[in-house]
Formats: sequence, C-alpha cells, structure tokens
Amino acid sequence: MPRFNPLVANLAAPPIPTVFAWGRSYDGSKGPMIDLSQAVPGYPAHPEMLRRLGEYAASTAYTGYGPIEGEDALRQAYGAHVASVYGAALGAENIHVTAGCNQAFICAAMAVAGAGDTVLMTDPYYFNQETTLAMLGVKVRLAPCDPDNGFQPDLAAIEAAMTPDVRALALVSPNNPTGAVYSPELLSTVFDLCQARGVWLILDETYRDFLPEAGVRPHGLFDKAGWQDTLIGLYSFSKAFCIPGHRLGAITASPSVVEQVAKVMDNVQICPPRSPQAAVAEALPLLSTWREENRLEIARRATALKETMEGLNGWSIGAVGAYFSFIRHPFPERTSTEVAERLAKEAGILCLPGSYFGPGQERYLRFAFANAGAPTIGLLRQRLQEFGGPV
Amino acid sequence: MPRFNPLVANLAAPPIPTVFAWGRSYDGSKGPMIDLSQAVPGYPAHPEMLRRLGEYAASTAYTGYGPIEGEDALRQAYGAHVASVYGAALGAENIHVTAGCNQAFICAAMAVAGAGDTVLMTDPYYFNQETTLAMLGVKVRLAPCDPDNGFQPDLAAIEAAMTPDVRALALVSPNNPTGAVYSPELLSTVFDLCQARGVWLILDETYRDFLPEAGVRPHGLFDKAGWQDTLIGLYSFSKAFCIPGHRLGAITASPSVVEQVAKVMDNVQICPPRSPQAAVAEALPLLSTWREENRLEIARRATALKETMEGLNGWSIGAVGAYFSFIRHPFPERTSTEVAERLAKEAGILCLPGSYFGPGQERYLRFAFANAGAPTIGLLRQRLQEFGGPV
Repeated sequence: MPRFNPLVANLAAPPIPTVFAWGRSYDGSKGPMIDLSQAVPGYPAHPEMLRRLGEYAASTAYTGYGPIEGEDALRQAYGAHVASVYGAALGAENIHVTAGCNQAFICAAMAVAGAGDTVLMTDPYYFNQETTLAMLGVKVRLAPCDPDNGFQPDLAAIEAAMTPDVRALALVSPNNPTGAVYSPELLSTVFDLCQARGVWLILDETYRDFLPEAGVRPHGLFDKAGWQDTLIGLYSFSKAFCIPGHRLGAITASPSVVEQVAKVMDNVQICPPRSPQAAVAEALPLLSTWREENRLEIARRATALKETMEGLNGWSIGAVGAYFSFIRHPFPERTSTEVAERLAKEAGILCLPGSYFGPGQERYLRFAFANAGAPTIGLLRQRLQEFGGPV
Repeated sequence: MPRFNPLVANLAAPPIPTVFAWGRSYDGSKGPMIDLSQAVPGYPAHPEMLRRLGEYAASTAYTGYGPIEGEDALRQAYGAHVASVYGAALGAENIHVTAGCNQAFICAAMAVAGAGDTVLMTDPYYFNQETTLAMLGVKVRLAPCDPDNGFQPDLAAIEAAMTPDVRALALVSPNNPTGAVYSPELLSTVFDLCQARGVWLILDETYRDFLPEAGVRPHGLFDKAGWQDTLIGLYSFSKAFCIPGHRLGAITASPSVVEQVAKVMDNVQICPPRSPQAAVAEALPLLSTWREENRLEIARRATALKETMEGLNGWSIGAVGAYFSFIRHPFPERTSTEVAERLAKEAGILCLPGSYFGPGQERYLRFAFANAGAPTIGLLRQRLQEFGGPV
C-alpha cells in the first residue's frame, strides 16, 4: 500500500475543527456558548461590501482567469493604501494578491526557503505558519517571547538563534496568539538585525487594522534603505472587511519578490478569486470610516476583557492587544488542552489551548476576544469564577 | 542580500503571460486574433450560474470561514455526481474541494511526496504539474508518450520508469496538452501496475466533461478493489461551468487521502472560496443539459479543426480529442517557441509551444481549439497556409 508523505502524515489534524467538536458537547447550562476560538469578527460585513461582492460575482467580467499577481484595480488600491499607512513609496508593483494570509505566508516562505533550510519563529507562534514550514520540510527554530514582558520578542534570543543557516524570520504583529503589538522601535531593531545578517523578515500584519491607536503608522520599515531585499509584508482582508469566506490576502514586497511569488502562486492556484478583488478594491477607500469604527469597538472589547479579568482568582492576562489576548489559567497541574476542553464543555467558553501555539505555552489560552461584544465578554467573569477546572 | 529559494528562482516565469505578450504585438492585419492559448471556454457561464454566484456572494451566510474540506452541499452534490459518472460507490466523504485543479494537484502531490521523492509523469506533461513538483524539490521522471500512436502513454516506458523510488504517477486524461483520451482499458492496466508497485496514481480529469462520447463512463478505476489505496482523482469546475475566475476544483479519493489533503489545505488557504461552492452545488444537477450541449459543441469544433488541418502543407494533427489538439508544425529547423511567437505576431494565432510541455516536443504546438467556434477555426486554414514560418 502506498504511503503518505511523512511530513504531512505526521502533522496533527487541523486544530480548529477539534475545538469546534468540544463546543458541540456543551449542554448550554451556563447560557449561550461564548466563541472566542477562531478569529472571526463578531459583526457582519458592510452592506456596501456585500452588494459589490454580489454584483461582481454575477458578472461575466470576472468569470475568466485573471492576472496571477491579482487584479490591477486591487493592486493599485491596496498599494495606495499601504503607501498611506506606512508613509512610504509603495504602489501596485509592490503588491501580490493571494487567497488569504495563510496563502500569502506559504507563497512567501516558499519563495525564500526550501526543504532543509531553516526559518526562525517566535514561541508562541501562529500555528499554521509552523505547520506550513513543517510540511515543506523547512526546519523551524524558535526564539522565546518573554511572558514577563507581555510576550514581546526577546531580541537577545532572536539574535542568538539567528545562525547562518537561517533564511528568514517570521514575525506576527499585532501578534497571533498573544495580541501583543510590537513597537516601531523594536521592529526597526529586528529589521536591522535581519538586514545585517542577510535574513528575510516576513512580517505578518493581518491584525493591523485593530491597532489600539488610530493614525499611527505601525512601523517605518518600508521607508528604510534597502528594505526591498529584506522585508516581506503579509496582510489579510478577511478580518478588516469580515469576509474570510471570500479568501483574500496580500503580500507587500519588492517587485523581485512579487516576481518569485507569482511563480509559486501560478502553481498553487493560477490566480486569486477575482470578483472579491474587484469588490475590495472599491471598498478599501469607501469603508475607511467603518473600519475605524470597528477598530474603536474592538478597543472597547479589549477594555471589557481587562475589566472582566481584573482580580479574578488565579486567572491573569499574559498579553492583550489587537484582537487577541493570551490568558494565564490557574491550573498548573493541567495541560492547556485539558483546560480548554473543559471550558468548552462545562463553562461554554470556546478558546484555543496555548500548546497549539508552541512548546512551553501550557499555562495559557488564546481568547479571540474581538469575536464577542462587551456585554458577552462581561459574562466571562462569572463563568470563569464558577469554573472548577479539569477534574 | 538574502537570496531566494533556488527551486523557485530557477523556475521559468509563468508561460501564459509570455504568450499573451506576443499577442499584444500582433498588428491585426490578418483579422482578429484567434486565441487558442489558455484553455478558456469561448462561451459564457450560464445565466442561472451567474445568478447564484451573485446571490450567494452577497449573502452573509458565506462570509465566514467554512469547512476545510469544502461546503457539505458541494461535497454531497459532487460526490453524487462522480458516483453517477463512474458507476461507483462514492459520496461526500470522498470529496475535498479546492480552489481550482492546480491546487488539487499540489495538495495531492504534497500528501504523497516530499522533497527528494520521485514522481513519474508523461512527456508531454501539463506544465504546472511539472513546475509544482520542481518547486517542492520533488524529482520528476518522464515516460514518453508515443507520437505515432496519438500520444497515448507507452505502457512499457511507464513500467520501465517505475523504479522503487517512484511515489506517484501523474496522468491527465483527457490529456493536456495533446487532447488524447486514454481508454478505460489502458487506465485499468496502468492502475493495476501502480497498485502492484505501491505507487499512487494521480489522475487529472479536468476535461472529463468534454469526452467525445456521451454517457460512457471514462474508466472503472473507482470500482476496482482497493482503489482507495492507489487512486486520487482530480477535477476542475472551471471548464465545464466557465468559471475559472471563481477558482473551484475537487479531489476524489478515500477518506484517508481527504484527511491528509485537509492538513495541506488548512495551511494553503484554510478553506476554498465559499459562495461559489454553494452556487456550483446547485448548478451541478441543474445545468447537466447545458453541459451536454457544450460537449456536443466542442465535439463540432474538433471536427472543424480536423477539416481545417486536412491536407495542409506540412502541418498535421499529432493528437486531437477533448478540448486540445497537439499540432505538428512544418519547420524542423525552428523551435516551437519561435514558431508560436511568429504565429502570434504575424498570423494572429495564439497558441502554446510544445516545448512548454516537455523535452522533445519542439515540433508541436498546443491548440486549445475549444476556445473558438467552428467559423473561427475555419479561418485557421488560410492563416496557416499563408504563414511562411519564422525567418
């Protein structure tokens, strides 16, 4: 009997469906399930977005194949958008559209690393980035974040781990799973280190639209001399526009990187889905006020979470920021999977175990608090207080 | 300066944009461009398809993440469809939806082979399958097809090339680029060989809806004992429904294969685009008559191509079948790329050079004749007659 590729066979099953299965065992005794598992905005897409998605999907203008790199309209609109966000000279030629940010990551990773190469990540990491590299046969090295410093990356640990075999460093800011936002200064220092060592910096900014402060540029990396040979930026339209089911993300990089990514994308799916690109190209400038209102709403949810967790027996916030919080649970004898499973089945709180995000994260749980409104977040307090932990 | 992954850097640029660029240099002197390059049905999607695509894309029911393996409705509808097509016990559990057939191929390939493994293909091959394997570091071995036998696979060549390091054999029937249809008997023999050798058979049937005969099952492989441990079927909804821009394909395989593919897909793009899945699930039974009419129309185009090429000085048909024809040109001193470029620029005929599809194919060009109606195909005769060849 033919066997499977051991790199794939040895991967654990995708984690989200496992967590959903726990949720289905909840008897509802504490009230409706509070779903803080997968990062899904708890409010619907804007009617103007939906109208455009429908109009362009029904149009024969988008039924044929499109450009591999993405629709010109979206590359131009998103190029102008990032030029404004970062205050940098960026345009359509810097953009490669993808079907979501997981695809942006695998395309970027394959463009710079192959089987046997090493990519450096933080611990905790976003699990799909780790499994992507593992299934490609790319070795993963981990640099721990500092739990006592809100899970900020430890520069000394990154520098020490950046041996000559490292091809790229993957960072996520605002971070998944912790929510931690990395400062422009920290990112600048990390970039300089990468540039000096000849290592690509793959920076995933999927949650950029939910930064706590408005109008502040996330970092100045796209303005640094020679950024083109070091930096690859990743993004997702799923969160900001509430359209993950339409699968759209983007890579921001030099035209040389775009050229390499296009070769990968041609093999992975020829072109990204077309009609949603046309819709997002228009929605990007049109819905900027709506996105800002959502940013404020999610900041309110972060405040609600901090209030809910304040002085709660044994529970504490390891990190909180944009979209996510990394929560320390009070059961040192139990694995994070045991705690999360019990929370789902008995307390009606669906969240992800820390161990999904890397070794040494057993004391933590990821709460995607942005999924729930402030009143729902307020309900967490009593449920956690009454929760006895795994038996 | 950080370098790129050499497996990606060494890939040639995607071929289709290069060919389109030749087309833009045509001065129109012979009449409108006859585009036989990329396989794109020359008729629009059905209005009932477009209506559903629009309706579901505008619905909040499909804005969230969906199941990795695909929407239940489409897995059920397509499972029932393949059960009927192959007269076999197939259902939803055998289906994994993907964003097009290139993605189905990379997911299937990764599930069974990693860097350093070997996959056997025919020569000529579908170029994206070759580049996919190359960029993954999978070694490709080629078994030549027989030009004197309408480019049917050569069983002896396949058997000789199937050394113990071969993990999978990739076949395409109806074939891209040649159009050749492999008989049920041939496929049965190849399957038996794969099964005996413990080699996966990845069978791409993207052009299955355009088989020359109606109502005949393409093969009986899904009915063979133990098919689950040998066979992985690939398909695309792009061609039959004229919706490549919406990116939908599917894998038909055992639940064990589906489980492995789901791990790959989770990393590649979490889930396929959702709203088109809902539309196709309904269109699959609804538009069966329309698809049959299109099959007949494309059979008429094949007849028109044979008439056009009949007795044409030096030109001949190497193979013709479903959708494609592999055309032998009369310029033995010239590369297929030189001939195709000149045809585009001077004769207004856009087609792909044989060399794109493998070594030793310099005497051939791929005509995607299904793109053009019979009257347009009729125009080829004069243009080819007047074409002097590369200078």
